[in-house]
Amino acid sequence: MAEVKLIGKLPSPFVYRVIWALKIKGIPYEFIEEDLTNKNPLLKYNPVHKKVPVLLHGEKTVCESMIIVEYIDETWQQNSLLPNDPYERALARFWVKFAEDKVVSVWRMFGAIGEELEKTMKETEEMLQTVEEHGLGEKKFFGGDNIGIADIAFGSVIYWLEVIEEAVGVRVISEAHKFPRLHAWIKNFKQVPIIQESLPDWDWMVAFCKGRREAVLASA
Amino acid sequence: MAEVKLIGKLPSPFVYRVIWALKIKGIPYEFIEEDLTNKNPLLKYNPVHKKVPVLLHGEKTVCESMIIVEYIDETWQQNSLLPNDPYERALARFWVKFAEDKVVSVWRMFGAIGEELEKTMKETEEMLQTVEEHGLGEKKFFGGDNIGIADIAFGSVIYWLEVIEEAVGVRVISEAHKFPRLHAWIKNFKQVPIIQESLPDWDWMVAFCKGRREAVLASA
Repeated sequence: MAEVKLIGKLPSPFVYRVIWALKIKGIPYEFIEEDLTNKNPLLKYNPVHKKVPVLLHGEKTVCESMIIVEYIDETWQQNSLLPNDPYERALARFWVKFAEDKVVSVWRMFGAIGEELEKTMKETEEMLQTVEEHGLGEKKFFGGDNIGIADIAFGSVIYWLEVIEEAVGVRVISEAHKFPRLHAWIKNFKQVPIIQESLPDWDWMVAFCKGRREAVLASA
Repeated sequence: MAEVKLIGKLPSPFVYRVIWALKIKGIPYEFIEEDLTNKNPLLKYNPVHKKVPVLLHGEKTVCESMIIVEYIDETWQQNSLLPNDPYERALARFWVKFAEDKVVSVWRMFGAIGEELEKTMKETEEMLQTVEEHGLGEKKFFGGDNIGIADIAFGSVIYWLEVIEEAVGVRVISEAHKFPRLHAWIKNFKQVPIIQESLPDWDWMVAFCKGRREAVLASA
């Protein structure tokens, strides 16, 4: 089997999606830290978006975090991240796309103040409410008893959202009583050993986010 | 095999994606025109987005046009819309996601004037240039010799873009010399018999778009 390399930058939530998928599958890989002073490798490997994560598998290059996760799932069969049934696969993809399309408000919250911050909080709350009402049900994970592709898509958002709220000093997901199913899911997600051991340290993340937020606000 | 129904509204480009996939597969279906005076069926079948297209397959409900196309491809095996190889599948999905994420400038062009129109034209040109440079190569279709999922994703954009440019009176994709590969692809796409016979009539589309544009601008 060809060698696997992951070009990434930590603590990018999109890079963690790929790390989790590789670890769940038990695929050894070399992590190559993106060199922000030298964007040339990305121009070569991801000329369209020039972003990490990029997966190198032998001669093959795969870009876009959730497309990489699906590539990993189709290349290595063990510990499936998608169900077998086409309808259940469509449901999983529906929530992946929802995560991809709707979580932009979470990242915008990061550099927002005043009215703009209020707006991103409202949009984030609506997004979470939709997942609470329609996405989770009484299941342990999005797809049932095991962690799957939709959990990976949302996990990288929700943990970062918790950190961002702490760094910004606001409360959306932190209002646990509003989202009982989501909080049960967060608990289940963090208890998966691979997630538990690979989630970046909370205090470090909060400090990192505070620093980045100050830099963003100072340059605005 | 359970009955297939498609809830849609013409000439929605997203609904055409599903129509093309069903026709390529040779699946008979009943088309149910969305009743804009009665949104209740959509609240029931697509409570998250409340939008068409919605595919009903027996008791199953699938939403989001490209997720429906992939569901159709996985449910009926004939005339595959995705390649078998995981890497080629990742490439196809990369361009589907690019179409989903980047074509918003095309729809914004529809209701834009002045500086905003210039901006949407510039963004659209950049999007087309990326497809021209990185997406198509010398192949007949995105995936090779046969029409596939990325062609369906872009076909519903490009034909509508041609119509919108005619209705708005601007030229982006119409500047054929700037996009020789794209124009070769457009020709190949329109020559596929199923596409040829199902594309909505050009004059009707231009008249429809002009009417809608006037309504949008009048209400702005």
